[in-house]
Amino acid sequence: MPKISEKGVFMPASPIRKLTPYADQAKKEGKKVYHLNIGQPDIATPDVMLDAIKNIDFNVWAYTASEGTLAYRLKLTEYYNKLGYNITPEDILVTLGGSEAITIAMQTCVNEGDEIIIPEPFYANYNGFACMSNVVVKPILSHIENGFALPPIEEFEKLITPKTKAIIICNPNNPTGYLYAKEELDELKALCLEHDLFLFSDEAYREFCYDGREFISPMHLEGLDEHVVVLDTVSKRYSACGARLGCMITKNKEVIKSSLKFAQARLSPGMVEQIAGAAAVDTPDSYFEEVNKEYTLRRDTLVSRLNAIDGVFCPNPGGAFYVVAKFPIDDADLFCQWILEKFELNGETVMMAPATGFYSTPGQGKNEVRMAYVLNTDDLNKAMDCLTAALEQYPGRKI
Amino acid sequence: MPKISEKGVFMPASPIRKLTPYADQAKKEGKKVYHLNIGQPDIATPDVMLDAIKNIDFNVWAYTASEGTLAYRLKLTEYYNKLGYNITPEDILVTLGGSEAITIAMQTCVNEGDEIIIPEPFYANYNGFACMSNVVVKPILSHIENGFALPPIEEFEKLITPKTKAIIICNPNNPTGYLYAKEELDELKALCLEHDLFLFSDEAYREFCYDGREFISPMHLEGLDEHVVVLDTVSKRYSACGARLGCMITKNKEVIKSSLKFAQARLSPGMVEQIAGAAAVDTPDSYFEEVNKEYTLRRDTLVSRLNAIDGVFCPNPGGAFYVVAKFPIDDADLFCQWILEKFELNGETVMMAPATGFYSTPGQGKNEVRMAYVLNTDDLNKAMDCLTAALEQYPGRKI
Repeated sequence: MPKISEKGVFMPASPIRKLTPYADQAKKEGKKVYHLNIGQPDIATPDVMLDAIKNIDFNVWAYTASEGTLAYRLKLTEYYNKLGYNITPEDILVTLGGSEAITIAMQTCVNEGDEIIIPEPFYANYNGFACMSNVVVKPILSHIENGFALPPIEEFEKLITPKTKAIIICNPNNPTGYLYAKEELDELKALCLEHDLFLFSDEAYREFCYDGREFISPMHLEGLDEHVVVLDTVSKRYSACGARLGCMITKNKEVIKSSLKFAQARLSPGMVEQIAGAAAVDTPDSYFEEVNKEYTLRRDTLVSRLNAIDGVFCPNPGGAFYVVAKFPIDDADLFCQWILEKFELNGETVMMAPATGFYSTPGQGKNEVRMAYVLNTDDLNKAMDCLTAALEQYPGRKI
Repeated sequence: MPKISEKGVFMPASPIRKLTPYADQAKKEGKKVYHLNIGQPDIATPDVMLDAIKNIDFNVWAYTASEGTLAYRLKLTEYYNKLGYNITPEDILVTLGGSEAITIAMQTCVNEGDEIIIPEPFYANYNGFACMSNVVVKPILSHIENGFALPPIEEFEKLITPKTKAIIICNPNNPTGYLYAKEELDELKALCLEHDLFLFSDEAYREFCYDGREFISPMHLEGLDEHVVVLDTVSKRYSACGARLGCMITKNKEVIKSSLKFAQARLSPGMVEQIAGAAAVDTPDSYFEEVNKEYTLRRDTLVSRLNAIDGVFCPNPGGAFYVVAKFPIDDADLFCQWILEKFELNGETVMMAPATGFYSTPGQGKNEVRMAYVLNTDDLNKAMDCLTAALEQYPGRKI
């Protein structure tokens, strides 16, 4: 029997999805499971987007240009320029999800064996994409005590070697919800200019900023045109995770030209998705206002319920729809499995993502858990009732 | 300014798409361009598939399971078991196009630096995917004189080293249209068993077999369950290239388990596509009968017109919708550019793909061109009128 590859062995499993068999088993046993593990919002996709799908009027479901249709890239340009990005359609590569934007950016910009610095905890799949591209992730620890703010820039300096090629930030952050301030981005800018590094800016959660705070992108910073590569997706913005439609944006002509070769190899992004994505740009502002009001309410509910539990600490995040909280437990992986397998409150339980999978340094995040507040406040409250009771009963409780 | 990666430099450009700027320029000058360069059929997508898109009735465009929805995998199982593959939904990984099936299969099964043997000419993007995965392609020359039949198995034996991990066949073949016979597959089977190799079977053109000939898959061969990995797509079967919906099928449990980790990293295939793909399984047989009748007519038209040109030789292929023909020219790349740039017949010209891009051995295919017969016979005849005249006038003509 032929053997699978070493990469096939070492490729990390998804920390968000690895407990799925336990959740499935719990459901089989009749338990209701509140899913706080995955960033799949329950928010409705905008009507303009769904209507665009229903109203397709082609006969041949054909390939599009590898870089995406001009029609879609023009609409995207309109969207980004409203944000002040000052781009043209030629600066955009349309991708099959934000995931593909990340892989193409890594393959285009970073040599094998070279290094990317990422503040941890970070979006777990960066590890998988780095593994696929033989890129070395150099984590830099951020801390729950200050809400996972950008680590001091001297800590970055210490990690920089001749192999360092890029820094990835996710802003607002998945998994921490931290929203980077202008000062933090300015520090990163100086660092990237000094050491000639790419700055990958994962902006999947751009629309989700709370308490009147403003989103700032490295695209807003002057003098960084050759360094910034934006990684984006329609998944969260329009609650359209199943569209698999993202894009990569950069004003660096060498990067966009080379990335097109990777895009040509896989031929084309989805045609229907690009039609829907173009329509989505006309989503009314009221949609985002309502959604942000709803998420603010959910965040406030979740954070206050969490901090009311004895021994739990959860910072109040400025954006996205995740929190990372510290629990009085021995091991988040064991706890998240136990609550599915051994616990129930009135026939209900909760699925969460152990934070260990979001750290690349072994041993970090062992008493931390990521939760996505993608459920309505009633369900969130019931999930917190479960969690409160579970933390009292958990045999691995630690004070 | 930060530099792009070495991979970004060495990644091959698509031979099918690299002449696009010349075609665009020809169109700007008012020429009509017949596109024989790309396998984008003009055949209508089945109504059942388009209706499924128009009739979507969800509110949240959500992620699906990383391996694909159970509903879609059940319909696929129905489709494949009608062909005699004898599989279960657990043997299927749904992918973002056949392209992703190829990359995931390579990453899962072949170590970096290890080798895959592929009869050449072959689907050009195998080169790109191999480059992305650091897999070494070992080409084995097939010959236009015998219609690009499988090279003698002794030629494969000669190439096998401890690093050889897999063989890829594309059947019916892109770019040659060659349809492998049972005897050829049996020889490959013996070879894979003896040397414990994976057999990747790219079956994108399974539905397109002519002259009453039967399609045979390695899935039909006994004793090869652990070795066969089928790479498939709905692109050509249902003329749905823009759907970006494919799959990988294998009964090798280690392979399917490991491939799921790569699939989890990119989260999910498209949701709307899977709904449409499930509906497409119910496409009536009459659709395929009509399509095959049409392609047979086109093939006959193209092949007879080509062979009627002085100095041209084109084998009559048994499947797919491509031919590779030999022209009396110095250099196919120059000729295919020249016919777009410098030639016209009554304001019309032709875009073709130089065959050089389908060979991995430098210098091979220099007087060969790939054509896709994806146009109706009227247009094909006009394209052949252009080609006939062009070959008379071409300054690089060789007898």
